[in-house]
Amino acid sequence: MEVDLSQKEETRISAQPNIFMKKARTLPVYVCRNIWKVGKDDPRRVIHALKVGVALTLVSFLYLLEPLFEGVGQNAMWAVITVVVVLEFTAGATLCKGLNRGFGTLCAGSLAFFIEFMAEETGRVYRAVFIGATVFLVGFMSTYLRFFPFIKKNYDYGVVIFLLTFNLITVSSFRVQNVLHMARERLYTIAIGCAICLLMSLLIFPNWSGEDLHRSTARKFEALAKSIEGCIDEYFNDKDDKVGENKLDGPIYKGYRAVLDSKFSDETLASFASWEPRPTRHCHKYPWQQYVKLGTVLRHFGYTAVALHGCLQSEIQAPKSVRLLFRDPCKRVASEVTKVLVELAYSISNRRLFSHDALSDHLHEALQDLNSAIKSHPRLFLGSKNGRKVTEPKHEKTSSAVALPSLKTDTSVMLQWKSNRIADQPKCSSEQKQLRPTLSKLAITTLEFSEALPFAAFASLLVEMVARLELVIEEVEELGRAAYFRESTASDELTIKVKIENMRQDENSHDLHTHEVHRIVD
Amino acid sequence: MEVDLSQKEETRISAQPNIFMKKARTLPVYVCRNIWKVGKDDPRRVIHALKVGVALTLVSFLYLLEPLFEGVGQNAMWAVITVVVVLEFTAGATLCKGLNRGFGTLCAGSLAFFIEFMAEETGRVYRAVFIGATVFLVGFMSTYLRFFPFIKKNYDYGVVIFLLTFNLITVSSFRVQNVLHMARERLYTIAIGCAICLLMSLLIFPNWSGEDLHRSTARKFEALAKSIEGCIDEYFNDKDDKVGENKLDGPIYKGYRAVLDSKFSDETLASFASWEPRPTRHCHKYPWQQYVKLGTVLRHFGYTAVALHGCLQSEIQAPKSVRLLFRDPCKRVASEVTKVLVELAYSISNRRLFSHDALSDHLHEALQDLNSAIKSHPRLFLGSKNGRKVTEPKHEKTSSAVALPSLKTDTSVMLQWKSNRIADQPKCSSEQKQLRPTLSKLAITTLEFSEALPFAAFASLLVEMVARLELVIEEVEELGRAAYFRESTASDELTIKVKIENMRQDENSHDLHTHEVHRIVD
Repeated sequence: MEVDLSQKEETRISAQPNIFMKKARTLPVYVCRNIWKVGKDDPRRVIHALKVGVALTLVSFLYLLEPLFEGVGQNAMWAVITVVVVLEFTAGATLCKGLNRGFGTLCAGSLAFFIEFMAEETGRVYRAVFIGATVFLVGFMSTYLRFFPFIKKNYDYGVVIFLLTFNLITVSSFRVQNVLHMARERLYTIAIGCAICLLMSLLIFPNWSGEDLHRSTARKFEALAKSIEGCIDEYFNDKDDKVGENKLDGPIYKGYRAVLDSKFSDETLASFASWEPRPTRHCHKYPWQQYVKLGTVLRHFGYTAVALHGCLQSEIQAPKSVRLLFRDPCKRVASEVTKVLVELAYSISNRRLFSHDALSDHLHEALQDLNSAIKSHPRLFLGSKNGRKVTEPKHEKTSSAVALPSLKTDTSVMLQWKSNRIADQPKCSSEQKQLRPTLSKLAITTLEFSEALPFAAFASLLVEMVARLELVIEEVEELGRAAYFRESTASDELTIKVKIENMRQDENSHDLHTHEVHRIVD
Repeated sequence: MEVDLSQKEETRISAQPNIFMKKARTLPVYVCRNIWKVGKDDPRRVIHALKVGVALTLVSFLYLLEPLFEGVGQNAMWAVITVVVVLEFTAGATLCKGLNRGFGTLCAGSLAFFIEFMAEETGRVYRAVFIGATVFLVGFMSTYLRFFPFIKKNYDYGVVIFLLTFNLITVSSFRVQNVLHMARERLYTIAIGCAICLLMSLLIFPNWSGEDLHRSTARKFEALAKSIEGCIDEYFNDKDDKVGENKLDGPIYKGYRAVLDSKFSDETLASFASWEPRPTRHCHKYPWQQYVKLGTVLRHFGYTAVALHGCLQSEIQAPKSVRLLFRDPCKRVASEVTKVLVELAYSISNRRLFSHDALSDHLHEALQDLNSAIKSHPRLFLGSKNGRKVTEPKHEKTSSAVALPSLKTDTSVMLQWKSNRIADQPKCSSEQKQLRPTLSKLAITTLEFSEALPFAAFASLLVEMVARLELVIEEVEELGRAAYFRESTASDELTIKVKIENMRQDENSHDLHTHEVHRIVD
């Protein structure tokens, strides 16, 4: 009945309330889906929320149960505050906050009692002035301290708590007689709060920042491998129309994006991880900073993936014929690179030492192949005016008809562009963006750059990628040494072989699949 | 006397305590220098620290002055807590925290009274169970809520305060009779604390997040311009030895690094800025999100600067002769690009609309030049085996003798590399890194890639850079429209002209200067 009514309404009334009603109806669905999604993306979130609920209930027993309340009294408040503020998602973050809070409170308490001791024997007015001056000075100094990068990174919260506690104790000592007693009581309840937090975060379904960092590092390698594979596949794809169209939201982009934007989260995780206790065989400090360093080198490597992707989106493109000529050697180099990346991901996530001698041989051979392929087509790098004659590969006979865009005179391009621009001015901006080709697009496509220019850029990026991969491998080896990764066993090597075989089969089947699709489309 | 003694000691005793003493003596100097540096880098930090000191002193008057203490009593504590926790460096951050705190407290208070109202008529045990269950549920739900990206970004602190206040009120309502009275008193003192914070951060030497974001955006353009200029200068530098040696700490690196790593700070500043009140002529919401968008496009542009820098560091390098051939057109394109960047920086920092028609003409001409330069040397793109004969530019007669590295066989390279590797194994890793050339370096330099390959990559990056610059210009124009920048006046154009003239003169004098240096070195 309601559905009927609403359907009739939909057809009757104008669009504005219609849209509003639709939105109102889809909103609960949208919210529910979001709630589900947040939990599904990372089920540990649900567990953490449950843990906070349990911890708060536990701490509220201090009020609710008669015998406990008699012990702590109104100070139970501080336990509640501590639990709410200190209990964080990962054990490292909780420890960092808890220890900072504890240490800050202790320091502040000591200083406050020292101040009180100094002001004890003096008159009331003098004491008030003294306390006021101390509050100002300590406030100034600790705020200034928070601007030091080292303090900001590790002890920011501790300084805030220091300032807070110091002020509370110093200022209330002016009115309350037995401050020492009060402070001790509060310290007890804060300790109870901290104990509950530590219990919850270290012993019951703990989430370790270090584990997160470790896993996310391994994942980054895989994301880069996928990104590079995607770039190569797309570059040598037979379909012309797709190249240059994938903007800032494809899987390629997401792959390297995850790596490039990871600086802040890496550093945060590493700093929390350094607070986490970690039982190791060798009784050493686990090298979390090495992960941050590896992340930096990996970003440096990732920039070549970005540049490779830039080749796909570029306004000047090598013709299909040129690309097809070098498809196989390029694909081989890229597949060797992704293979190394996958192996690195495996060796990190399984904490095995990485040995890349055999792999390097393959990489080197692939580079040699690419080199001889480029050398075997010297005439290609001639400018297009000088009698372009591309030698076609045998299995492809489609591309000799690729025509260059005709050369317009500069003035006509500029005039066309300017008139577009003036005509577009009053239109709304989102429309405008799609309608108006940019000046560069017009200008660049009229330039008859040598056809080899964009391909040369592509090939040179591949070579550069191999060079930077070496730096990444070095950092991983360094990490393996510093973290005492185990030697890889025969079974590991078997697993890696199977993994690579699978990857290759996936690749082949993917190739087959796309070929089939093309046939259907054609 | 002391100096004498310590000098004698230095010469006498062994190195270990010597170093320790030196460190102990330099530590105070180091600390003092750091303290000075933190303040000098941004003098607003000192002012902020002073502001916090004053605010804390003001709020401590609530305790110290008799009439004020009679009004608020022990609840003055909440004002102190509020000031310590809420007063942040920028006005936006303070407002964000203050409003979150206020709103969270209000919501929590309302909910807590509703809960109390529901549990009022029941028995004591039932009431305790009811309160415990509510605490668990609210704790679970609000913690889960904090995982939603939208909430996390804008209202995280508000949810924490909501949870805190709700627990405090609900739990204490079990013991205290007149909770309503208590809550109202607390609210008053929290309001006093918030008022002091707002006074301090909005009226006395305010720091605006929006201003920071605005300025940092303009600075990013300048940093990129400098980076690109540095790349070009170095690439076409006559001295061969420098190319490929500048690692991850030069000024070029720092320039684009500032842009690439700005994502997190941009987003934070924009989210704080959106809390700031802003008197505008047009009564519109200031488009802070447009700055974030501009930052994204600018990073996308910045990746080409990274890739350009990668060309300098690459293992395969175009010979000097090839580079010199195309020096002038490349430099011209780059200087047009940096000119546009400098103008964009000027137009943003002075809030002027940007009009780039005239500039585009220059850019287009520069591209045409580069194109014709490349077309005029078609034989260059031949592989090196096919009789390389480079036409030299008239003003440079040095480079025809550039020899390619001789082609080693693969096996010898691999053997050499492996033996290096094995020999290096026991050495310490930092030494190792400098001593052992990477496999890729050995492998890649033995490949006889066409000489034009690396230069083609460089030229193609320049063209790509121009294409992406267009996207940046579009975003700046969009920003100008959304933020109602003023039309640029004649005096602006004059200023820009003078600026560009200065830049050019700087460039020329720099060129002259480097030439002189070379003469002296030669």
